[in-house]
Amino acid sequence: MAVVKVQADVLDRFCMDVFDRFGFSESDSRIITDVLLLADLYGIESHGAQRLVRYHKGIASGRIKVDAKPEIIHETPVSAVIDGHAGMGQLMGHYGMSLCIEKAKKSGMAMVSVRNSNHYGIAGYYAKMASDQGLIGISCTNSEAIVTPTFGKKAMIGTNPLAFAMPAKPYPFFFDAATSIVTRGKFEIYRKAEEPVPEGWGVDENGKVCTDPGRVLDNINARAGGGILPLGGAYELTGSHKGYGNAMIVEILSSILSLGLTSNHTNIGTLGGTCHGFAVIDPAIFGDPDAIIQHLSDYLEELRESPKADGHDKIYTHGQKEVEGLARRKKEGVDVDMKTLDEMKDMSEYVGADFMSYFADVYRK
Amino acid sequence: MAVVKVQADVLDRFCMDVFDRFGFSESDSRIITDVLLLADLYGIESHGAQRLVRYHKGIASGRIKVDAKPEIIHETPVSAVIDGHAGMGQLMGHYGMSLCIEKAKKSGMAMVSVRNSNHYGIAGYYAKMASDQGLIGISCTNSEAIVTPTFGKKAMIGTNPLAFAMPAKPYPFFFDAATSIVTRGKFEIYRKAEEPVPEGWGVDENGKVCTDPGRVLDNINARAGGGILPLGGAYELTGSHKGYGNAMIVEILSSILSLGLTSNHTNIGTLGGTCHGFAVIDPAIFGDPDAIIQHLSDYLEELRESPKADGHDKIYTHGQKEVEGLARRKKEGVDVDMKTLDEMKDMSEYVGADFMSYFADVYRK
Repeated sequence: MAVVKVQADVLDRFCMDVFDRFGFSESDSRIITDVLLLADLYGIESHGAQRLVRYHKGIASGRIKVDAKPEIIHETPVSAVIDGHAGMGQLMGHYGMSLCIEKAKKSGMAMVSVRNSNHYGIAGYYAKMASDQGLIGISCTNSEAIVTPTFGKKAMIGTNPLAFAMPAKPYPFFFDAATSIVTRGKFEIYRKAEEPVPEGWGVDENGKVCTDPGRVLDNINARAGGGILPLGGAYELTGSHKGYGNAMIVEILSSILSLGLTSNHTNIGTLGGTCHGFAVIDPAIFGDPDAIIQHLSDYLEELRESPKADGHDKIYTHGQKEVEGLARRKKEGVDVDMKTLDEMKDMSEYVGADFMSYFADVYRK
Repeated sequence: MAVVKVQADVLDRFCMDVFDRFGFSESDSRIITDVLLLADLYGIESHGAQRLVRYHKGIASGRIKVDAKPEIIHETPVSAVIDGHAGMGQLMGHYGMSLCIEKAKKSGMAMVSVRNSNHYGIAGYYAKMASDQGLIGISCTNSEAIVTPTFGKKAMIGTNPLAFAMPAKPYPFFFDAATSIVTRGKFEIYRKAEEPVPEGWGVDENGKVCTDPGRVLDNINARAGGGILPLGGAYELTGSHKGYGNAMIVEILSSILSLGLTSNHTNIGTLGGTCHGFAVIDPAIFGDPDAIIQHLSDYLEELRESPKADGHDKIYTHGQKEVEGLARRKKEGVDVDMKTLDEMKDMSEYVGADFMSYFADVYRK
């Protein structure tokens, strides 16, 4: 597929324009755009500006309420439960993590669960909010049930990503990963390339391991059974129950503690209901935070410098690729495929944005 | 290999006898024995009474100090760092989790990190201590570096298990798993059976995927390179970086926050240095704890009742197998293999315990 490079500031201005036209305030548009742009700059394009179109559909269908305000429905000095009232996920996520950071700064640690929200973009954005302030940040979310439990043939859990971020030098520790073996986007890439997916990625409507990406995706879309497998694949032998367990931990921190909808009940028709979980820990409650962060930095350095497997010249630590990629993409632009530009153009017409004023130099030239 | 059934109370009395002879007080022996017996009753025999012999060696070599007392070296209302002074892991773990529970009951949540400890048995024991009291318990530990980071050929991380327990009915949620794809014990089983291990379990001294369990184990023992792979196997395509990331989270919660030794520096010669991490959350800080626990119970029930993949008649939720297995093993006895009994007999002679008074009816009859 044709891919063009778009400068980040162009995408940024386009997103701000579109969210304004969706009806969001400037400060809310700023938050949502920041979350999307970070994904693009980190190379997680599936969660970047290409989501604009899906958010537009969500707003049009009523699943996402532009005017919703987060409501604290339970609170202690170390915790809160927030009802998102079907608002935009990024706004509820940003509000939840901000509150969690505020509480952790006072109490040393805190947790916040959010229910009745929507897709919040990359989990890592919120974890990074904490680590940018010298704290440990944890962020997770449940999501539409497209993952089967071990030995199941019906998708009952979401891809349920968990992110964990902590300051370190020269790269912060930044881990952000679905608890499923891959996300839906990976299946879409294989379908477009007309290639089978690796064994252990998905199961068909009978719960049998299936390497046909189209069949798995069509089944997911039709809710016909089957789905994506947990990290660890299909069998206990390869650790399927471990990925399934990790997904359950995410479910507990998001939907269970908030009494929200579990993944299997979210995102059906015009019902969103996505739930998020946040935790923040101030390293200072364990001693000298500088010494602790240095200790992590030293270990990460040892890992990067440790002997490489034959055929590899680099061992990465989590967060390194993101930092390196961000610097490169800020200079060179971010990848946007032509299909996404087409969708953005259609949407622009619908909301009255001047698409060509942003993308004339890259669109089908 | 020949396996015999031993009644749990017989193993219990034998362990108590042996730990007394090692020099532990009755209350300390009680704690250590409880941790080992729970592993046996849960069917995790590798972490049960068969560890006695290794603990004996640890004590004899000086790696484990029988008289060590845990020392709190940093403390806040929601946290503590404990120096284990090379004491028995179970005692340091029990002390750390007890302190964490006490703090969480007052503050709503708490975290404790322990450094300079030793192998503490199953991570889940300590998480269960919290869930038995209506709380959410998290327990993790680093360990001897026998796991390679993604694209590495030198073991730099431990099998680093993480356990998460929360009350639910009829089975509590109880997740306890290494962040590596399997543990060393699984390789030993394949070596004994003279069968290749599945691809994606281990790498050889060059970092190449290796299905020869003996080669991987010999390399590990000789510190000759290679090792076990993280959950997700050898490739990013199968999620290797995710298991590696989960192992890093465990490392942060245990060795980094406590300024203890990271896995790659522990358990070398007579140096132990293992670190543990504990966290406890009172569900009541999120609302009505009964409603929250019921919400989890309902979801677990939905998972168990959801459609099964072809060829399977059960979907398990985490903790179910353990509860069912415990009831069965309390009645039928726990599995002990003859080789373990041989080792126990040798050790008994060494410490002066009357082996045959415990095992005459099962030993080579």
